[in-house]
Amino acid sequence: MKPQVTVVTLGVRNLDTSYDFYSKALGWEPLTYVPDEMAFFQVGHGLVLSLFRADHLAAEAGEIGHGPLAPPVTLGHNVGSPDEVDALLNTVVAAGAELVAEGTAMSWGGYSGYFADPDGFHWEVCHNPGLIVAEDGTVSLRVIV
Amino acid sequence: MKPQVTVVTLGVRNLDTSYDFYSKALGWEPLTYVPDEMAFFQVGHGLVLSLFRADHLAAEAGEIGHGPLAPPVTLGHNVGSPDEVDALLNTVVAAGAELVAEGTAMSWGGYSGYFADPDGFHWEVCHNPGLIVAEDGTVSLRVIV
Repeated sequence: MKPQVTVVTLGVRNLDTSYDFYSKALGWEPLTYVPDEMAFFQVGHGLVLSLFRADHLAAEAGEIGHGPLAPPVTLGHNVGSPDEVDALLNTVVAAGAELVAEGTAMSWGGYSGYFADPDGFHWEVCHNPGLIVAEDGTVSLRVIV
Repeated sequence: MKPQVTVVTLGVRNLDTSYDFYSKALGWEPLTYVPDEMAFFQVGHGLVLSLFRADHLAAEAGEIGHGPLAPPVTLGHNVGSPDEVDALLNTVVAAGAELVAEGTAMSWGGYSGYFADPDGFHWEVCHNPGLIVAEDGTVSLRVIV
Protein backbone atom coordinates (compact mmCIF):
# COMPACT_ATOMS: atom_id res chain seq x y z
CA MET A 1 0.00 0.00 0.00
CA LYS A 2 1.41 3.35 -1.02
CA PRO A 3 1.62 6.02 1.68
CA GLN A 4 -1.22 8.12 0.37
CA VAL A 5 -4.29 9.81 1.80
CA THR A 6 -6.76 11.16 -0.77
CA VAL A 7 -9.77 11.91 1.40
CA VAL A 8 -10.19 12.75 5.07
CA THR A 9 -13.78 12.07 6.13
CA LEU A 10 -15.20 13.51 9.33
CA GLY A 11 -18.28 11.71 10.60
CA VAL A 12 -20.49 14.52 11.86
CA ARG A 13 -23.65 14.43 13.93
CA ASN A 14 -25.29 17.35 12.14
CA LEU A 15 -24.09 17.71 8.57
CA ASP A 16 -25.79 20.98 7.86
CA THR A 17 -24.38 22.70 10.95
CA SER A 18 -20.88 21.52 10.05
CA TYR A 19 -21.37 22.50 6.42
CA ASP A 20 -22.46 25.99 7.43
CA PHE A 21 -19.34 26.38 9.54
CA TYR A 22 -16.90 25.45 6.77
CA SER A 23 -18.77 27.05 3.88
CA LYS A 24 -20.23 30.17 5.49
CA ALA A 25 -18.16 30.93 8.60
CA LEU A 26 -14.83 29.99 6.98
CA GLY A 27 -15.95 30.83 3.44
CA TRP A 28 -14.81 27.62 1.76
CA GLU A 29 -16.25 26.80 -1.66
CA PRO A 30 -17.51 23.19 -1.72
CA LEU A 31 -16.78 20.72 -4.49
CA THR A 32 -20.19 19.28 -3.76
CA TYR A 33 -22.86 19.50 -1.09
CA VAL A 34 -25.87 17.26 -0.60
CA PRO A 35 -27.89 18.68 2.31
CA ASP A 36 -28.26 16.36 5.28
CA GLU A 37 -25.94 13.85 3.57
CA MET A 38 -22.38 14.90 2.62
CA ALA A 39 -20.10 17.72 1.51
CA PHE A 40 -16.66 17.73 -0.12
CA PHE A 41 -14.06 20.49 0.07
CA GLN A 42 -10.65 20.55 -1.60
CA VAL A 43 -8.08 21.12 1.17
CA GLY A 44 -4.80 20.46 -0.59
CA HIS A 45 -3.13 19.15 -3.72
CA GLY A 46 -5.37 16.24 -4.67
CA LEU A 47 -6.82 16.19 -1.16
CA VAL A 48 -10.49 16.23 -0.16
CA LEU A 49 -12.06 16.95 3.22
CA SER A 50 -15.39 15.15 3.36
CA LEU A 51 -18.14 15.81 5.86
CA PHE A 52 -20.44 12.81 6.12
CA ARG A 53 -23.34 11.99 8.42
CA ALA A 54 -21.80 9.84 11.14
CA ASP A 55 -24.79 7.48 11.19
CA HIS A 56 -24.60 6.92 7.44
CA LEU A 57 -20.82 6.57 7.57
CA ALA A 58 -21.18 3.87 10.23
CA ALA A 59 -23.50 1.97 7.89
CA GLU A 60 -20.75 1.61 5.30
CA ALA A 61 -17.51 2.07 7.25
CA GLY A 62 -18.20 -0.18 10.21
CA GLU A 63 -19.25 0.84 13.70
CA ILE A 64 -17.78 4.25 14.34
CA GLY A 65 -19.03 7.15 16.34
CA HIS A 66 -18.53 9.91 18.84
CA GLY A 67 -17.71 9.10 22.44
CA PRO A 68 -17.95 11.53 25.34
CA LEU A 69 -14.57 13.07 24.44
CA ALA A 70 -13.63 14.94 21.27
CA PRO A 71 -12.42 12.61 18.50
CA PRO A 72 -8.76 11.51 18.87
CA VAL A 73 -7.64 13.23 15.69
CA THR A 74 -6.49 16.71 14.81
CA LEU A 75 -6.28 18.47 11.46
CA GLY A 76 -3.25 20.69 11.06
CA HIS A 77 -3.26 23.97 9.15
CA ASN A 78 0.23 25.40 8.86
CA VAL A 79 0.94 29.10 8.52
CA GLY A 80 4.04 31.23 8.18
CA SER A 81 4.58 32.77 11.61
CA PRO A 82 3.40 32.81 15.24
CA ASP A 83 1.58 36.09 14.54
CA GLU A 84 -0.35 34.39 11.76
CA VAL A 85 -1.33 31.63 14.19
CA ASP A 86 -2.78 34.15 16.63
CA ALA A 87 -4.48 36.16 13.91
CA LEU A 88 -6.08 33.09 12.35
CA LEU A 89 -7.28 31.78 15.71
CA ASN A 90 -8.89 35.16 16.36
CA THR A 91 -10.54 35.07 12.94
CA VAL A 92 -12.05 31.60 13.28
CA VAL A 93 -13.21 32.23 16.84
CA ALA A 94 -14.89 35.43 15.68
CA ALA A 95 -16.52 33.30 12.97
CA GLY A 96 -17.97 30.96 15.59
CA ALA A 97 -15.34 28.29 16.25
CA GLU A 98 -14.59 27.28 19.81
CA LEU A 99 -11.12 28.20 21.08
CA VAL A 100 -9.56 25.06 22.56
CA ALA A 101 -6.00 26.26 23.22
CA GLU A 102 -4.45 29.66 22.66
CA GLY A 103 -1.32 30.01 20.57
CA THR A 104 1.62 28.70 22.59
CA ALA A 105 5.35 28.23 21.98
CA MET A 106 5.95 24.49 21.71
CA SER A 107 8.86 22.44 23.05
CA TRP A 108 9.67 21.32 19.50
CA GLY A 109 10.39 24.83 18.31
CA GLY A 110 7.08 25.80 16.77
CA TYR A 111 4.01 27.73 17.85
CA SER A 112 0.46 26.48 17.70
CA GLY A 113 -3.06 26.73 19.01
CA TYR A 114 -6.27 24.77 18.58
CA PHE A 115 -9.90 25.41 17.76
CA ALA A 116 -12.89 23.06 17.52
CA ASP A 117 -15.46 22.86 14.74
CA PRO A 118 -19.18 22.48 15.57
CA ASP A 119 -18.88 18.71 15.86
CA GLY A 120 -15.89 18.90 18.19
CA PHE A 121 -13.13 18.07 15.72
CA HIS A 122 -9.96 19.87 16.76
CA TRP A 123 -7.87 21.84 14.29
CA GLU A 124 -4.31 22.86 15.02
CA VAL A 125 -3.21 26.21 13.61
CA CYS A 126 0.52 25.81 13.54
CA HIS A 127 3.76 27.53 12.67
CA ASN A 128 6.43 24.85 12.30
CA PRO A 129 9.65 26.37 10.96
CA GLY A 130 11.14 22.88 10.66
CA LEU A 131 8.50 21.51 8.30
CA ILE A 132 9.52 22.32 4.74
CA VAL A 133 7.40 21.59 1.67
CA ALA A 134 9.30 21.66 -1.63
CA GLU A 135 7.73 22.80 -4.92
CA ASP A 136 7.05 19.20 -5.91
CA GLY A 137 5.22 18.55 -2.63
CA THR A 138 8.02 16.64 -0.93
CA VAL A 139 7.98 17.20 2.83
CA SER A 140 11.14 17.36 4.88
CA LEU A 141 11.81 18.01 8.54
CA ARG A 142 14.61 20.17 9.79
CA VAL A 143 15.53 20.10 13.46
CA ILE A 144 15.38 23.54 15.03
CA VAL A 145 18.14 24.26 17.52
CA MET B 1 -8.80 30.71 6.69
CA LYS B 2 -7.68 28.99 3.52
CA PRO B 3 -9.10 25.52 2.85
CA GLN B 4 -5.91 23.64 3.61
CA VAL B 5 -4.94 20.59 5.63
CA THR B 6 -1.19 20.07 6.06
CA VAL B 7 -1.13 17.42 8.76
CA VAL B 8 -3.58 14.73 9.85
CA THR B 9 -2.75 13.62 13.38
CA LEU B 10 -4.10 10.38 14.80
CA GLY B 11 -4.06 10.21 18.58
CA VAL B 12 -3.06 6.61 19.29
CA ARG B 13 -3.08 4.63 22.52
CA ASN B 14 0.10 2.71 21.74
CA LEU B 15 2.43 4.65 19.48
CA ASP B 16 4.89 1.86 18.89
CA THR B 17 2.23 -0.66 17.87
CA SER B 18 0.77 1.83 15.41
CA TYR B 19 4.21 2.78 14.14
CA ASP B 20 5.06 -0.88 13.53
CA PHE B 21 1.88 -1.30 11.51
CA TYR B 22 2.53 1.62 9.17
CA SER B 23 6.30 1.25 8.91
CA LYS B 24 6.74 -2.51 8.97
CA ALA B 25 3.43 -4.09 7.92
CA LEU B 26 2.69 -1.46 5.26
CA GLY B 27 6.35 -0.65 4.58
CA TRP B 28 6.10 3.13 4.80
CA GLU B 29 9.32 5.10 5.27
CA PRO B 30 8.89 7.61 8.12
CA LEU B 31 9.94 11.25 7.92
CA THR B 32 10.69 10.96 11.61
CA TYR B 33 10.02 8.59 14.47
CA VAL B 34 10.50 9.19 18.19
CA PRO B 35 9.70 5.93 19.99
CA ASP B 36 6.80 6.13 22.43
CA GLU B 37 6.19 9.72 21.33
CA MET B 38 5.40 10.47 17.66
CA ALA B 39 5.97 9.52 14.04
CA PHE B 40 5.48 11.43 10.77
CA PHE B 41 4.83 9.92 7.34
CA GLN B 42 4.41 11.80 4.07
CA VAL B 43 1.05 10.72 2.62
CA GLY B 44 0.53 13.16 -0.22
CA HIS B 45 1.75 16.34 -1.88
CA GLY B 46 2.78 18.46 1.10
CA LEU B 47 0.71 16.24 3.40
CA VAL B 48 1.83 14.55 6.62
CA LEU B 49 0.19 11.75 8.58
CA SER B 50 1.25 12.08 12.19
CA LEU B 51 0.90 9.41 14.85
CA PHE B 52 0.95 10.96 18.30
CA ARG B 53 0.37 9.53 21.76
CA ALA B 54 -3.26 10.32 22.52
CA ASP B 55 -2.47 11.24 26.12
CA HIS B 56 0.24 13.70 25.07
CA LEU B 57 -1.94 15.07 22.29
CA ALA B 58 -4.70 15.74 24.80
CA ALA B 59 -2.23 17.74 26.89
CA GLU B 60 -1.71 20.24 24.07
CA ALA B 61 -4.80 19.86 21.87
CA GLY B 62 -7.51 19.91 24.52
CA GLU B 63 -9.42 16.99 25.94
CA ILE B 64 -9.62 14.38 23.21
CA GLY B 65 -9.65 10.63 23.37
CA HIS B 66 -11.06 7.31 22.33
CA GLY B 67 -14.59 6.37 23.22
CA PRO B 68 -16.03 2.85 23.10
CA LEU B 69 -16.58 3.13 19.34
CA ALA B 70 -13.98 3.55 16.61
CA PRO B 71 -13.14 7.22 15.96
CA PRO B 72 -15.67 9.06 13.74
CA VAL B 73 -13.19 9.68 10.95
CA THR B 74 -12.01 7.69 7.95
CA LEU B 75 -8.90 8.10 5.81
CA GLY B 76 -9.47 7.46 2.13
CA HIS B 77 -6.93 5.82 -0.16
CA ASN B 78 -8.05 5.92 -3.77
CA VAL B 79 -7.01 3.35 -6.34
CA GLY B 80 -7.71 2.81 -10.03
CA SER B 81 -10.23 -0.03 -10.15
CA PRO B 82 -12.50 -2.30 -8.07
CA ASP B 83 -9.98 -5.13 -8.54
CA GLU B 84 -7.28 -2.94 -7.01
CA VAL B 85 -9.56 -2.28 -4.03
CA ASP B 86 -9.98 -6.01 -3.40
CA ALA B 87 -6.29 -6.75 -3.95
CA LEU B 88 -5.18 -3.99 -1.59
CA LEU B 89 -7.64 -5.06 1.12
CA ASN B 90 -6.25 -8.60 0.85
CA THR B 91 -2.71 -7.27 1.12
CA VAL B 92 -3.28 -5.14 4.21
CA VAL B 93 -5.32 -7.82 5.97
CA ALA B 94 -2.53 -10.32 5.27
CA ALA B 95 -0.18 -7.74 6.81
CA GLY B 96 -2.23 -7.67 10.01
CA ALA B 97 -4.94 -5.05 9.48
CA GLU B 98 -8.49 -5.83 10.54
CA LEU B 99 -11.01 -6.14 7.73
CA VAL B 100 -13.98 -3.92 8.56
CA ALA B 101 -15.99 -4.12 5.34
CA GLU B 102 -15.28 -6.06 2.16
CA GLY B 103 -15.15 -4.27 -1.17
CA THR B 104 -18.69 -3.36 -2.18
CA ALA B 105 -20.29 -1.51 -5.11
CA MET B 106 -21.54 1.80 -3.73
CA SER B 107 -24.75 3.64 -4.54
CA TRP B 108 -22.72 6.63 -5.76
CA GLY B 109 -21.05 4.66 -8.55
CA GLY B 110 -17.80 3.65 -6.90
CA TYR B 111 -16.46 0.61 -5.10
CA SER B 112 -14.88 0.57 -1.67
CA GLY B 113 -14.03 -1.42 1.41
CA TYR B 114 -12.60 -0.62 4.83
CA PHE B 115 -9.88 -1.82 7.13
CA ALA B 116 -8.86 -0.78 10.65
CA ASP B 117 -5.38 0.02 11.90
CA PRO B 118 -4.22 -1.24 15.33
CA ASP B 119 -5.78 1.71 17.11
CA GLY B 120 -9.13 1.28 15.38
CA PHE B 121 -8.85 4.08 12.83
CA HIS B 122 -10.77 3.09 9.72
CA TRP B 123 -9.27 3.43 6.25
CA GLU B 124 -11.39 3.36 3.12
CA VAL B 125 -9.80 1.76 0.08
CA CYS B 126 -11.81 3.26 -2.72
CA HIS B 127 -12.27 3.34 -6.46
CA ASN B 128 -14.19 6.50 -7.30
CA PRO B 129 -14.35 6.98 -11.07
CA GLY B 130 -15.97 10.39 -10.56
CA LEU B 131 -13.13 11.88 -8.50
CA ILE B 132 -10.58 13.38 -10.88
CA VAL B 133 -7.27 14.90 -9.78
CA ALA B 134 -5.61 17.13 -12.40
CA GLU B 135 -1.83 17.41 -12.78
CA ASP B 136 -1.79 20.58 -10.70
CA GLY B 137 -3.65 18.84 -7.86
CA THR B 138 -7.05 20.36 -8.57
CA VAL B 139 -9.85 17.97 -7.61
CA SER B 140 -13.08 17.77 -9.57
CA LEU B 141 -16.12 15.58 -9.27
CA ARG B 142 -17.93 14.09 -12.18
CA VAL B 143 -21.35 12.56 -11.69
CA ILE B 144 -21.44 8.94 -12.84
CA VAL B 145 -24.66 7.95 -14.60
